Amino acid sequence: METLSYGQYSLVYNAFSFTFATMAAATLFLWLGRSQVGHAYKTALTISGLVCAIAAYHYFRIFESWESAYTIKDGAVAMSGVAFNDAYRYVDWLLTVPLLLIELILVMRLSSNETISMSVKLGGAAALMIILGYPGEIATDNSARMLWGTLSSIPFVYIVWQLFAGLGASINNQPENVRGLVKKARLLTFASWGFYPIVYMIPYTNLAGPDVTVGVQVGYTIADLIAKAGLGVLIYLIAVRKSEAEYGQAAHA
Amino acid sequence: METLSYGQYSLVYNAFSFTFATMAAATLFLWLGRSQVGHAYKTALTISGLVCAIAAYHYFRIFESWESAYTIKDGAVAMSGVAFNDAYRYVDWLLTVPLLLIELILVMRLSSNETISMSVKLGGAAALMIILGYPGEIATDNSARMLWGTLSSIPFVYIVWQLFAGLGASINNQPENVRGLVKKARLLTFASWGFYPIVYMIPYTNLAGPDVTVGVQVGYTIADLIAKAGLGVLIYLIAVRKSEAEYGQAAHA
Repeated sequence: METLSYGQYSLVYNAFSFTFATMAAATLFLWLGRSQVGHAYKTALTISGLVCAIAAYHYFRIFESWESAYTIKDGAVAMSGVAFNDAYRYVDWLLTVPLLLIELILVMRLSSNETISMSVKLGGAAALMIILGYPGEIATDNSARMLWGTLSSIPFVYIVWQLFAGLGASINNQPENVRGLVKKARLLTFASWGFYPIVYMIPYTNLAGPDVTVGVQVGYTIADLIAKAGLGVLIYLIAVRKSEAEYGQAAHA
Repeated sequence: METLSYGQYSLVYNAFSFTFATMAAATLFLWLGRSQVGHAYKTALTISGLVCAIAAYHYFRIFESWESAYTIKDGAVAMSGVAFNDAYRYVDWLLTVPLLLIELILVMRLSSNETISMSVKLGGAAALMIILGYPGEIATDNSARMLWGTLSSIPFVYIVWQLFAGLGASINNQPENVRGLVKKARLLTFASWGFYPIVYMIPYTNLAGPDVTVGVQVGYTIADLIAKAGLGVLIYLIAVRKSEAEYGQAAHA
């Protein structure tokens, strides 16, 4: 039976509140930054901010769901009987993960056709990855979790392959002063996304119930912070540098 | 007697939360995009964003109404005695459906006279369609549902006829680089609106009570997402392309 210690309950509670604040702050930073970049890069910042805004909404809901799933009495944590709603994460990812790939594509400023075709391919694969992961996340036995997790990793491998092989040539065509940043953004995407399957596999370990709960919640939270707010800041830096090179200081003064 | 399973209850619950987040995100995307289009297209984006904002508000209310209509105890779902408020949808549609047609007309940039006369004709027919559908939605017997549904389909057919016959010539006068997109926007409107009557007719099937509830709620939700957020993104793409052609990059740098 699941019995979190008060320290464990508080750790997750505070991590959720911290993440809501960070995502909301990142949203405002990215949207305010729109006025500092050239025309071609505004949509990349709009979408980076949207991803953080959507995440802020869901962390607000997740925070409230966590609060109502437990009751605290005399420092002891008991389950309230209201289930913690895991689905908020998947609903969030269904929206934000395709958008994360689209912001990476937009900041590269490819041709219109290439932008649309890469967005459809990568965005579609990302949505499929999330949809296939969910039945495993809510499964009560580990073999179902493993089956859906494995299916979900097929589109994941496809995305990684597209990011490195498909976008590789385009990245080498980026202006020299941002090529390193674009590669960093790709690496950050790959590394942070690689963190989700590791968290997903925590229940396979022989950790006990409460440790699994804390590990999964804190793990996904850290991954979300890096993949969304962290990537957003990199996208902002790329957009500012490219704007200075392409539009000059004057165009966006 | 209606008894939803916990999975059915959660599916609708999460679909409503997802839709609130998507509509709010689409609103912000469309309003931030106003700075990226020429003067003549700003109103089209203002209204597209308004439609999504009104829908976000109503999905927030619908979400709360759903939550308070059921009580969950030990994983079992029971009706709380507070009725789920179906009217939110019709109130939303009464406002948003005429606006959806107006955003489609605005992005075509017809003459002022034509814009006003088409907006009055199509907007009026759309409002009539919603008003006639409502008595059927809340009717307890299927023959009343069918009567009002049939009456409601008369203005619907008129709108479809106007979109294809009345607007056909204007669409062929659109610049070549957006003609395909405008046709897609018209088709998306037609196809997504055609989905509503199908959902409306779910109670005629021999599905049982809870399946009807889930089917109607999820069905209307998907149709709303496509008809509002999906159309909004298409309107945005049309507005950006037409602005680039008509105003050049400089006008909206």
